[in-house]
Amino acid sequence: MQGTVLYGPGDIRFEDVAEPRILKPTDAIIKLAATCICGSDLWPYRGLQPVDGPQHMGHEYCGTVVEVGRDVKTIKAGQFVIGSFATSDNTCPHCKHGFQSSCEQREFMSGAQASYARVPLADGTLVATTEVPADDLLPSLLAVSDVLGTGWYAANAARVQPGSTVAVVGDGAVGLMGVLAAKQMGAERIIAMSRHKARQELALEYGATDIVTERGDAGVARIKETTKTVGADAVLECVGTNESMHQAINAARPGGSIGFVGVPHGVELNGEFLFFSQKNLLGGPAPVRRFLPHLIDLVLTRKINPGKVFDQVLPIADVAEGYKAMDERRAIKTLLRV
Amino acid sequence: MQGTVLYGPGDIRFEDVAEPRILKPTDAIIKLAATCICGSDLWPYRGLQPVDGPQHMGHEYCGTVVEVGRDVKTIKAGQFVIGSFATSDNTCPHCKHGFQSSCEQREFMSGAQASYARVPLADGTLVATTEVPADDLLPSLLAVSDVLGTGWYAANAARVQPGSTVAVVGDGAVGLMGVLAAKQMGAERIIAMSRHKARQELALEYGATDIVTERGDAGVARIKETTKTVGADAVLECVGTNESMHQAINAARPGGSIGFVGVPHGVELNGEFLFFSQKNLLGGPAPVRRFLPHLIDLVLTRKINPGKVFDQVLPIADVAEGYKAMDERRAIKTLLRV
Repeated sequence: MQGTVLYGPGDIRFEDVAEPRILKPTDAIIKLAATCICGSDLWPYRGLQPVDGPQHMGHEYCGTVVEVGRDVKTIKAGQFVIGSFATSDNTCPHCKHGFQSSCEQREFMSGAQASYARVPLADGTLVATTEVPADDLLPSLLAVSDVLGTGWYAANAARVQPGSTVAVVGDGAVGLMGVLAAKQMGAERIIAMSRHKARQELALEYGATDIVTERGDAGVARIKETTKTVGADAVLECVGTNESMHQAINAARPGGSIGFVGVPHGVELNGEFLFFSQKNLLGGPAPVRRFLPHLIDLVLTRKINPGKVFDQVLPIADVAEGYKAMDERRAIKTLLRV
Repeated sequence: MQGTVLYGPGDIRFEDVAEPRILKPTDAIIKLAATCICGSDLWPYRGLQPVDGPQHMGHEYCGTVVEVGRDVKTIKAGQFVIGSFATSDNTCPHCKHGFQSSCEQREFMSGAQASYARVPLADGTLVATTEVPADDLLPSLLAVSDVLGTGWYAANAARVQPGSTVAVVGDGAVGLMGVLAAKQMGAERIIAMSRHKARQELALEYGATDIVTERGDAGVARIKETTKTVGADAVLECVGTNESMHQAINAARPGGSIGFVGVPHGVELNGEFLFFSQKNLLGGPAPVRRFLPHLIDLVLTRKINPGKVFDQVLPIADVAEGYKAMDERRAIKTLLRV
């Protein structure tokens, strides 16, 4: 089969790769219904994260099970499944506490920008739908796998409550999903920080009540102004730079919460700054598995439409163009047809 | 009157100072029933925090109101009162959210190691008891003002729940109060990290179930071992060094919480480390005012005995000896009779 391989900064190829096979008795092999490019794929693509040899890309997926290992008990061939980018046994103490992305057996998925993928710990990682979903729901189900699950976790970690004032730092796909999540959780005001028209419009459609175009200290000042100098109850940090992280912390009120899901690159936090800021901080790779049943249900009952975040659809053979479009911010997020 | 003044590292003097007077119409003047030396007073005493000119020391207090400003409505002369080291109006949005130590009008108390002290924002800062408490309760009521309030906040910020496994980093007075607080909140296991016999004993008396004498990575390894490799649900960081902060974060399980109340000195946290640790962080100057009514009640009904943390009692004229004893760890905490 063919798959997506990153050779170095800017060098994405779609080429012959070995077909995945069962390596451990707890594995499953799935035929992807669709796959996509993640904002986090851009870090190594941009050379901001080292690439030690060719990397098989892709960790967002949904599709049909074609084979399972001999120890897989609940997942069966023929089922339509959605899973998380972080695999989990869903039985260890961390999983039981709802932090499956820190599972004792966690692996990070790779190689899902292809026709087939191997999913480790199939029983604990995958959730099957009762029937094969309608085609038009595929983008939204794919979104659940990471980008929605991550935006949802940002809102959950930031303790968004009914009536909350929420600020979202980052207008990438995860930030937009954070807006959707905050809306679903009953936020009263949702301030999206964005200076891109198309993203502002999608943010408004997903429930944003205010748009702030300023960044850094100016962005914080605008949020303070917008909240009568108090600051936001909850801030979703969906970028991962030192500037965006400080912006997020400064935008929250004392006792407010920051959910940070942008993979940090070059972030350093001073202890005294954190102490006198007096704000809740929780971040990390999203425990998507915790949210999967609820999010899948919201999609299947058509209560949410996260799939709209895909504003570019390409055949997977054109994956390199997808990376380029996302890198240049011409596309918010690219879905790859397999 | 005479008061305590720090001139520079190691140079504490008890000498003539101006008597405090009403400076703002919201002030009160109190006659102290007792006062004490705080662990945080040792930072400048040890030269680890700059001293720009003579500093009037002391921020823990309880006593009798002798005068109030013309805008003070609820606090009256003659009342016995306890207040927080951080003053608050108790009406601003941050106060209403329970973060009075980030009050829009916050000032940090000073000059309370003396016979009289000025308390700004008296109505929002002070809590009066209905009658003058028995003498033997004074140490415990004094403890409420900061050291217990701070230990309590550490446990609250670390989200201690009934059944929690808690680790306490730091065996100073605040750490010991953290043990007491965790016990009151229903923790099932309380692991105190201490290598000092007297402090271990007090920790056990306050409710610790385990003592860990190792520090740093070895201490973390012991906590992991003690918790079947999971880590603690809640960790109270009561020191403030870079090592203790990292130790606290590493000792918690993913999804667990760290309440940090040791004033950070030289603490730097890497974003990627925090992200992949995936732990809740909340710290800062304790919003003692939030807890005052409950803690005063626990003391007056003799359900807790935080005053036992004072293992040295000196006449205030000997305050310099108190600093020395605490600096040399001969005393856990020194009460000063006024």
